Amino acid sequence: MLGHVKIALSKFRITPSTARLFAPRLATRTKTTHQANMSSVNQATAQSKVINYENMNPHIKRVEYAVRGELAIRADSLKQVRFIIIGPSCFTIDVRILIDSLHPFSIPLNTPPPAAYQELTQGDTLPFKTIINSNIGNPQQLNQKPITFFRQVASLVDNPDLLSPENRELLLKLYPSDAIERAELLLHNIGSIGAYSHSQGIPHIRQNVARFIERRDGYPADPSKIFLTQGASAGVQNILQVLTEGPSTGIMIPIPQYPLYSATIALFNATPVPYSLDESQDWGLDPKKLASSIGQARAKGVDVRALCIINPGNPTGQCLSEANMHEIVDFCHRERVVLLADEVYQTNVYQPAQRPFHSFKKVLRSMGPTYADFELVSFHSVSKGMVGECGRRGGYFECTGLDPRVLEQIYKIASVSLCPNVHGQIMVDLMTNPPQEGQPSYPVYHAEVHGIYESLRRRAKRLADCFNTMEGVTCNDAQGAMYLFPRVRLPRKVIEEAKRQGRQPDEVYCLAMLDATGVCVVPGSGFGQEEGTWHFRSTFLPPEGLFDGFCAALEEFHREFMNKYRD
Amino acid sequence: MLGHVKIALSKFRITPSTARLFAPRLATRTKTTHQANMSSVNQATAQSKVINYENMNPHIKRVEYAVRGELAIRADSLKQVRFIIIGPSCFTIDVRILIDSLHPFSIPLNTPPPAAYQELTQGDTLPFKTIINSNIGNPQQLNQKPITFFRQVASLVDNPDLLSPENRELLLKLYPSDAIERAELLLHNIGSIGAYSHSQGIPHIRQNVARFIERRDGYPADPSKIFLTQGASAGVQNILQVLTEGPSTGIMIPIPQYPLYSATIALFNATPVPYSLDESQDWGLDPKKLASSIGQARAKGVDVRALCIINPGNPTGQCLSEANMHEIVDFCHRERVVLLADEVYQTNVYQPAQRPFHSFKKVLRSMGPTYADFELVSFHSVSKGMVGECGRRGGYFECTGLDPRVLEQIYKIASVSLCPNVHGQIMVDLMTNPPQEGQPSYPVYHAEVHGIYESLRRRAKRLADCFNTMEGVTCNDAQGAMYLFPRVRLPRKVIEEAKRQGRQPDEVYCLAMLDATGVCVVPGSGFGQEEGTWHFRSTFLPPEGLFDGFCAALEEFHREFMNKYRD
Repeated sequence: MLGHVKIALSKFRITPSTARLFAPRLATRTKTTHQANMSSVNQATAQSKVINYENMNPHIKRVEYAVRGELAIRADSLKQVRFIIIGPSCFTIDVRILIDSLHPFSIPLNTPPPAAYQELTQGDTLPFKTIINSNIGNPQQLNQKPITFFRQVASLVDNPDLLSPENRELLLKLYPSDAIERAELLLHNIGSIGAYSHSQGIPHIRQNVARFIERRDGYPADPSKIFLTQGASAGVQNILQVLTEGPSTGIMIPIPQYPLYSATIALFNATPVPYSLDESQDWGLDPKKLASSIGQARAKGVDVRALCIINPGNPTGQCLSEANMHEIVDFCHRERVVLLADEVYQTNVYQPAQRPFHSFKKVLRSMGPTYADFELVSFHSVSKGMVGECGRRGGYFECTGLDPRVLEQIYKIASVSLCPNVHGQIMVDLMTNPPQEGQPSYPVYHAEVHGIYESLRRRAKRLADCFNTMEGVTCNDAQGAMYLFPRVRLPRKVIEEAKRQGRQPDEVYCLAMLDATGVCVVPGSGFGQEEGTWHFRSTFLPPEGLFDGFCAALEEFHREFMNKYRD
Repeated sequence: MLGHVKIALSKFRITPSTARLFAPRLATRTKTTHQANMSSVNQATAQSKVINYENMNPHIKRVEYAVRGELAIRADSLKQVRFIIIGPSCFTIDVRILIDSLHPFSIPLNTPPPAAYQELTQGDTLPFKTIINSNIGNPQQLNQKPITFFRQVASLVDNPDLLSPENRELLLKLYPSDAIERAELLLHNIGSIGAYSHSQGIPHIRQNVARFIERRDGYPADPSKIFLTQGASAGVQNILQVLTEGPSTGIMIPIPQYPLYSATIALFNATPVPYSLDESQDWGLDPKKLASSIGQARAKGVDVRALCIINPGNPTGQCLSEANMHEIVDFCHRERVVLLADEVYQTNVYQPAQRPFHSFKKVLRSMGPTYADFELVSFHSVSKGMVGECGRRGGYFECTGLDPRVLEQIYKIASVSLCPNVHGQIMVDLMTNPPQEGQPSYPVYHAEVHGIYESLRRRAKRLADCFNTMEGVTCNDAQGAMYLFPRVRLPRKVIEEAKRQGRQPDEVYCLAMLDATGVCVVPGSGFGQEEGTWHFRSTFLPPEGLFDGFCAALEEFHREFMNKYRD
């Protein structure tokens, strides 16, 4: 493995054009750190520009997105060269020189650099060999192998020349026959994957998605109410945009939440209406808290229109019980609130006997004709589950009970962006319609899915156990999803140190973790948390082979951190 | 070919689940056409819904997008089944029954159905055999063959198993060595294409884009100022969103314009500031008109911040002269306006000696240090040119002279959507870095690009000639892009008929054309046009083999239409 790294390194040279990738940022920093009065310099620059920070879209400025925020940027900045190695290791770093960042921006210039950063600029080395990106649910970045059948079909639709009869004999040595048949079926229904498709998504694929939902739930699904999207995020953004009339529109979001929701609400100038998940009840929902949250918002004149739920939860990992879901549907029905159900982790369920996944569509339909008019939008994605095809940007949402004239408008907005990328659509087809028992690809498909699932389950448990051994840390088991959200009880001195640094205490903790271990997680303050509590989110996606070292490093860091700041 | 169609038809059956694809729309129509008072019915439905047409986002309701508007929807509705056939024919229709639409909505319910539509519902047949979608620049929908090398590389990165040493011998029988090398290089730099990439785009690809721009323009380009996007449309939407502070923000757009611009401006609640292109000067820009347009807007208190230019033009096909581009840069500089240059048709240039393509970046840089601070954003796409990979949703924009703090915010917004789809990014790499002379794939690549280009040039000329022979029609030659925008002088009786129907006269003309010929074009009113003039936009993308029939049908339709309505 090391040999491989060395070869890769020797191939990499800082040529003038490579340097340019990084140079502008370095130049800016060099210049500005030598300025005595930085804010006046920035103002001068800003004023000379037609569009500057002061007069640009104010809603964009309000957006916060911690998953790719300061921590992630600093983690990037610690990587000189990004290697992804198919094998047991992750990113490997050469620490001769510091490349500030691949980003056009970086850590705020007036932030004092942390210890490891200073050492590095002085030519020393970091106390770790590997940056582990546990900040984002990005399985294939951390070496999860893609599902073979899915990639085989994708490669065949890309290159239809392979399917010509004269290649058939050769092709059958490289591809199973069902991958070839599926590619032919898709091309028959799509035509060229290089053409814009129907703006709502390819009809054939929407039909397959509807059948998938029917098999999953046991209730009918209507392809004309399904919209294929560029990942679930794009779908959530579309729907929130449609729901928003102005700043008086309130959207209920869980605390903790996935910051896509707060970011999108800020972007469209709506009002977030937070409701708390109950950490002591495995992050379940208490309908009383929902009622008090909506009551408070309405008392302030907020027109609360929608309730966002992430199930299985992100960052909290809970799988809602059916009884709890009944209560939630009932609440929305009574309060006249549209339910937005983010169900992208529906196959990431690790206690299937006690806490299986139920879709809100199924629960709703099971509740009978009283709820026939209920408005629900359910989101799904190819980025999660055992598929993990984040780079495709594929997903869908199903609209239940929406006003047909609102559906028209959703379609119109989709058509302005022409269509979701066809490759992402094809991955949705494959995810919802995988090889079946008896087909040639089924054994490999089944073994791959099963292998990933079992490994995720082991890793979830292993990491929760690791966190629970740490002083002052408690962590619920992950019933689902890809994350743990441990609570850390931080000494008073950390809170004082955080005040001095102008940061949140959990940011101080996570930055110290990154600098000591190379493990990048996201502070709980990026997701929201009950006041006076501190958490962080970590995926359990690092390769299993790394877990012993990974956990030992975290434990050692935590011990030293607590010793340093002990009251 | 016909044999092929028959096989396809026989494979297609209206099963219950197929029918569901189409059924809801039909059901709605059936129900509502039997209602005496439709508006009260719609209101009742709307009021029972939490989110309804009345209280949804008002900016979305204002959006118009004619390219996929009523005409396109009706064209879809005339296709029972959508076949894309790799070969000389396009869509072929079986006209036994009418499927209303694949869309969740359709022609407004109170619109009287046109003649052909009525015939069809009565079991008669349409007067044509083929729907030709000339409404949208979607080359591969109309059988343009993708570039072989691009698809080969795309299929290899999809299926890295193919690249393992034990497959090499077989692989070399199916792939040229340079496609294999390129795929290996991309994978080495990307890792898995199933992982989220850097939100701004894969650094290796941004670097290649920068080199492409440098070779094209002869001036430096900075990868840290390049953002890869999901097609140029997504980039335009991002930038317009960033520029908009509120309804007082004015964005200058050409008339005629591509409706992405007006739609996006409506969506973000900014104010369009139209300026006219001069049809008598080959759709060039008159700086005096720019000055009068900005003056009028500013007199009304509009804060005009940006000027959008499409060059080569859509729908107008002009290539701006270098002198004209100097005037435009000068205007923006003097008036403190950001220039947004939509250059997606930069290789669709059909009079390269008289009217070559110049990028605004190059023209700007050639104007020297006075313009060093000039703010320019340039857009490009993989959907146009000889690439025509619309389904990938790939593109980029390059920012020149923007405030670094505004760049930070552009990055932040990109990060909320995680990343542009990696397949689209790879196509950007291939487009900007194609096979070079001496490489194994070069001869095929060169022949394919040259063949598509020469054919487009012939088709542009052939269709313009066809339009120019028609009574009362004048059409500028396409200097570039994929469209013609002929002017039609319509008799007074058409204008009266249009008033009766509550439509624009050019809509009446285009609907009649669709019903008579199966050719779907877009009325000029969807793009904007000088008052009292009528146009339509037609691509010249239909396969060359269809052109004789296509032109003859258009000529016959026009003759009959003019005879019917002659004053």
